[in-house]
Parts: sequence; structure tokens; C-alpha cells
Amino acid sequence: MKLADFGFIEGINEIIAVTRNEDGSLNTAPIGIIVEDCNSTLARARLFRSHTRENVKRDKVMYANVIWDAEIFALASFQDLEQDYFESLEPPVLKNALSWCKFRAMLRGAYADLELVDGKVLRKDVRAVNRGFNAVIEALVHATRYVILKDENKKRELKERILYYYEIAKKCGRDKEKKAFEIILEKIH
Amino acid sequence: MKLADFGFIEGINEIIAVTRNEDGSLNTAPIGIIVEDCNSTLARARLFRSHTRENVKRDKVMYANVIWDAEIFALASFQDLEQDYFESLEPPVLKNALSWCKFRAMLRGAYADLELVDGKVLRKDVRAVNRGFNAVIEALVHATRYVILKDENKKRELKERILYYYEIAKKCGRDKEKKAFEIILEKIH
Repeated sequence: MKLADFGFIEGINEIIAVTRNEDGSLNTAPIGIIVEDCNSTLARARLFRSHTRENVKRDKVMYANVIWDAEIFALASFQDLEQDYFESLEPPVLKNALSWCKFRAMLRGAYADLELVDGKVLRKDVRAVNRGFNAVIEALVHATRYVILKDENKKRELKERILYYYEIAKKCGRDKEKKAFEIILEKIH
Repeated sequence: MKLADFGFIEGINEIIAVTRNEDGSLNTAPIGIIVEDCNSTLARARLFRSHTRENVKRDKVMYANVIWDAEIFALASFQDLEQDYFESLEPPVLKNALSWCKFRAMLRGAYADLELVDGKVLRKDVRAVNRGFNAVIEALVHATRYVILKDENKKRELKERILYYYEIAKKCGRDKEKKAFEIILEKIH
């Protein structure tokens, strides 16, 4: 078993992390899993102050879902996804996820050291590159900073970038990407 | 047979188009195939003045390769790919392409009307979202404009954008993305 089996490559893999909150409910958040050798079981992730980080600290477990759904990325950036979005709760698997992985997770400074301990490929697919989808991912990087920043100048700059990507999504994306931007734009009003 | 079978979704699908030059050699270029209904066989593509356009005009045939290889996208943006890059020449299929399609193509103004007439899925895969790959695609949009523009101010602006994406590729990408940027940076010196 190695990271590559489940769709991870060298570099930063943007996935939906699923952890369990103290009350047993599921926490979902997009995070980047940093992989140096995809033929190994070892990775790490930068975890900022968040529920994900608290849950990892307590449980020492993190699940990852490899998925290509712009709306899911947008929703998970700002809230926990309800059970309706999952096709399985144990292990936690979002509908249409291509694969899931379970990582043993240990906080170390700003990072969590991750070790792949279980996983499954649920479906493989063939999809063409879509700049609209990519635009959602980039916009979310900026939008999640936007909502925590105070500096009005920086906020304005981020908003401009987000609106730039919105244009790409309108031109190149499909409904999913447009729905994702509805969620994003609501956050930057 | 429908577009969705080969990885096309609604929106603009970034693929490598393969057409035949007048001397029989293969022409390769990244283009965006515009799909309104992926359950149909009909699509279109904007074709600027290019060898692709001339070949489509003459042959009324265009092949598409659905592929996720940043280096191939970068190379094909600036030159024809040699035969070594193909795993099949008839139909023309690049190594590691997920699928190929054959379109009947008819120029209409700035666009080509496309009708899917043949195709095959060669391999399906599972891959996590990678911002480094996406950064290559965005940088190529700017780099291909950069090389034809004369206006120094616009060129400077495009170069800044390209260098912004280079930072993302260095941080999030793997070797393929870094190789792609070597090709891109050489063009904007």
C-alpha cells in the first residue's frame, strides 16, 4: 500500500480532510497533503488553528477523500458537510469521492505527520482539464484568507483576485463551478 | 457514443488537439473544446489563425487527446510534438493520454463545429487536485499571448502573472510541472 495507489502524487494534493469532532460529528475541510515520495506511506499537512487541527490532536486520525467536485470544495471551506453529502460514514466517504485514505496523524509544530494506514479506490475516471474547476480552487485559497483578514486593502486585493477567477469559472466551468462561486461570493460581500 | 464517455463535461475542456499537416506530419496544440451538452456528440472550438485551423479547414478532421501531463501541455503550446511522444500514430494518441476522440470538423467563422465520430478510453485514473498542474495551464494561457504581443506594458503584466503561477508550481507541483515552467520561462525571457 502506497500513497500513489489512492491518487496522491509528489507535491501538494488538495483533498477533503475528514476528522471527528468531540461530539462525534464529522468535520470536513479542504487541506493540502504534502507528498515527497508517492511510493511511500508518509506525508504531512500544514494545519492551521482549526477544528481539523484540534481533532487530529485528540484522535491522531485523519481521513482524506480524493474528489473532484467544486461545490464540495467550496462548501467544505466554510462549514462542515452534513451526513447527506456522504455515501459512507464509517469510513467517512463523500458521494462521488474517487478514493479515501486513513492516516495516522501526529502534530509536530505547524504540521501533522501523516502515515497511510488504510484506503480504497472507489472509482476511477477520465476527465478533461477544466479551467473553471481550477478557478474555484484558486478562488477558495483567497476566499478563506479573505474571511479572516482585517486589513481592508488586502481584502480588496483578494476580492479582485476572486472576481478574476469568477470570470474564468463563468466562461469555462459548468453548473458545479457556478454553484461553488455562489457560495464564495456570498462570503466576500 | 457521447462526449461524456471520453471525459468531456459541460464547459470548456482543455485537451491536446492533433491534426495532420499538409506534409502528413502531426500537428499538436492545446485547445479548448466547448461543450454545451456532454450527453451529445456535438461541440465546438475557437480556432485562431494556426496550423490547427488550416489543417481542419483542409481535412475536416480533428483528434482530441484527454491528458494530464503538464510538460506535454507546455511543449504542445509552442511546437509540434514528435512521434516519440505518441503511443499510436493512427489514431494519433499521446503516451499516457486517458482517451482519444475523432471529430468531424467544419469551420464556421472563428469556430469549428465538431461532431464526435469515434473515440476510445485507454485508461482511467484517480488523481488528487494539484494546484501546481493548474498553475501550468493558467501560465500557458498567458505565455501563448505573451509571445505574440508587441505592447511592452501588456507583456510585462502577462509576465508578472506567469511568474505568480510559477511560484505556485514550485510550491505545489511535482517535477512535471517544474519542467513545464522551464519551457514557459524560456519563452518569456
